[in-house]
Amino acid sequence: MAALTLASRACLNAWLLCLLCTDISFFQAQGPKSALALLTSPNSPHSVQIKAFEETVTADISLSLAAGEAAPDLTDALERVRATATESLKAAPVQHLDATTLYPPVVRGGSFPTVVPSSDGLWIQYDFDELVFHEKSPYQDVKIYHSRQFGNMLLLDDDPNLAESDLAYTQAILGSGRFNFEGKSVLVLGAGDGGVLHQILKLNPANVIMIEIDEVVINAARKHLRGICFDSMDNLTGPNYEIRVKDCLGEMDTLQAQGMQFDYIINDLTAVPVSTSLAGSDWEFLQIVLNRAMPLLAPHGKYLTQGGSANMPAATRCYEDIVHAHPAGLDFTKESVCVPSFHEMWLFYTLWKTN
Amino acid sequence: MAALTLASRACLNAWLLCLLCTDISFFQAQGPKSALALLTSPNSPHSVQIKAFEETVTADISLSLAAGEAAPDLTDALERVRATATESLKAAPVQHLDATTLYPPVVRGGSFPTVVPSSDGLWIQYDFDELVFHEKSPYQDVKIYHSRQFGNMLLLDDDPNLAESDLAYTQAILGSGRFNFEGKSVLVLGAGDGGVLHQILKLNPANVIMIEIDEVVINAARKHLRGICFDSMDNLTGPNYEIRVKDCLGEMDTLQAQGMQFDYIINDLTAVPVSTSLAGSDWEFLQIVLNRAMPLLAPHGKYLTQGGSANMPAATRCYEDIVHAHPAGLDFTKESVCVPSFHEMWLFYTLWKTN
Repeated sequence: MAALTLASRACLNAWLLCLLCTDISFFQAQGPKSALALLTSPNSPHSVQIKAFEETVTADISLSLAAGEAAPDLTDALERVRATATESLKAAPVQHLDATTLYPPVVRGGSFPTVVPSSDGLWIQYDFDELVFHEKSPYQDVKIYHSRQFGNMLLLDDDPNLAESDLAYTQAILGSGRFNFEGKSVLVLGAGDGGVLHQILKLNPANVIMIEIDEVVINAARKHLRGICFDSMDNLTGPNYEIRVKDCLGEMDTLQAQGMQFDYIINDLTAVPVSTSLAGSDWEFLQIVLNRAMPLLAPHGKYLTQGGSANMPAATRCYEDIVHAHPAGLDFTKESVCVPSFHEMWLFYTLWKTN
Repeated sequence: MAALTLASRACLNAWLLCLLCTDISFFQAQGPKSALALLTSPNSPHSVQIKAFEETVTADISLSLAAGEAAPDLTDALERVRATATESLKAAPVQHLDATTLYPPVVRGGSFPTVVPSSDGLWIQYDFDELVFHEKSPYQDVKIYHSRQFGNMLLLDDDPNLAESDLAYTQAILGSGRFNFEGKSVLVLGAGDGGVLHQILKLNPANVIMIEIDEVVINAARKHLRGICFDSMDNLTGPNYEIRVKDCLGEMDTLQAQGMQFDYIINDLTAVPVSTSLAGSDWEFLQIVLNRAMPLLAPHGKYLTQGGSANMPAATRCYEDIVHAHPAGLDFTKESVCVPSFHEMWLFYTLWKTN
């Protein structure tokens, strides 16, 4: 490894000084398996970190940019680095080094972040080019970014909720065409982006009550997510629908006291609870919502809900255990659907009473 | 900024020494807008890099792991760092600091890389948990990884080609159900994963000729991608199909010399050319394939092809200019489809002769 680290240091110096920095500020062999170098310059706000491992060499280029300042195009320079690194490492008197992996530069310090980790903590970067809307409501942080490929995209507390590309989500939470909503009574929980309301009103339901806690979301969607809600939320009431800006838990109690029942209940609440009347974990939230909703579900009715990432089997099992243990006697089907902007397979459940 | 950097240094020291490292090895204020700290220990192969910007503080934790060694679970420690950082920065006598962004740790040096950049160079990490197959063929580097949510996934020269989750891709390249293949003659270029062949044989074509250059891909798919090809490539010939292991350019010349014509030609070649008889850029490759294919397309026939990422508008325009300038007189439709494993919207073209 000594030969590699010395060779590496000389090579790195030659490869990278030309890029951004003037000196190797720090160099350390990290045990027998890796080496670490940091390149900075007193005259430059940028830095380059090089790591050499047994099988890969990575260059992490950090650009410190003022808000709105464009990153320099590093494509050619990076390709040169990769080619040189591959050749030099092949020539070095060290075994096991027959590949380099060049990761895209990690750009930090821009005016907004573009990395939104997946449910299981993977590093997923979006092509956001504009922060279209940002307001902290009494319940949550509401952001809408523009993505070149997904259109405008809603994030609540930095969690991706829905983009204008994501009709697949709305179709899936409505049961993927398996159900007939014509002439039926429907209760929608959440869904402040308006996607469910817009789609369901096209299916001629008798009556829809939608309960969304956050007026900020409704107003932002009405203006910036028209590819999702279209004109469905331009008025809060219509001939066969009503949007109630309320906490759905309290409102479900009210509906129950009135003896209301629904053919379909659609739970399109955020995965992360925002209700002020609720404490506890996300799964407790799903359980509490389920408990409140079941008295409102007609005996023949269906309860439709999103069920989180398909890549979280422990959480999925937890929810399914809750459903199976429910005193109302419940069974379910589920499907895994690709929602374009999510970068994860997503689960959708249909629940019904068995007795 | 001086106050911040001093405060930050003290805080970082307190927050992070407990995590992995014993000392701040390097610290530098990077101009008025950012500060950089590197934490290492002579006794540890791990390192932590902290960057403080005007709007974000990031911690990049690099773990040097032996092949197969599991990464320690840092979730709790990172959440502690984030909470402490947010509070401390709010208390610091510096304006503009009202948020921190905690990125997932960047894990390097594992036995295989999990980051596969998107077409436009974004940082996309996959949930690969096993390298199922790896062989360098005479034409390309052939890898199959297992993903928990996408099933087995084929990468050619580290470019994602298709996963077992991706029926949407095969349906789209076959025209999304708009065409009737029954009793028709079909030429398939590439498609060594077997997805197109499997789907099209279900539609009762009169005759299918598939030309795939790389036997390594066919053999790997037959064994490890059965969720794509099923049994369609268990035999290279059948009652109404034939798989020719050839360079499609030369083979198209042969077919033309024989006066053959096809009702449908499906170009499912890799986005990156591997033919040894070809030089030039990717777009020249698409143009050359198009030129060879047009004499083989029946006057009423359709030429179906994937068209790359919808997020590369310059490249898309380039291809469409080529099509419109083609001497055969061509027009096209296109659609943008979400392919689960791609993490990008993907384009699919239908071309036809207008005269």
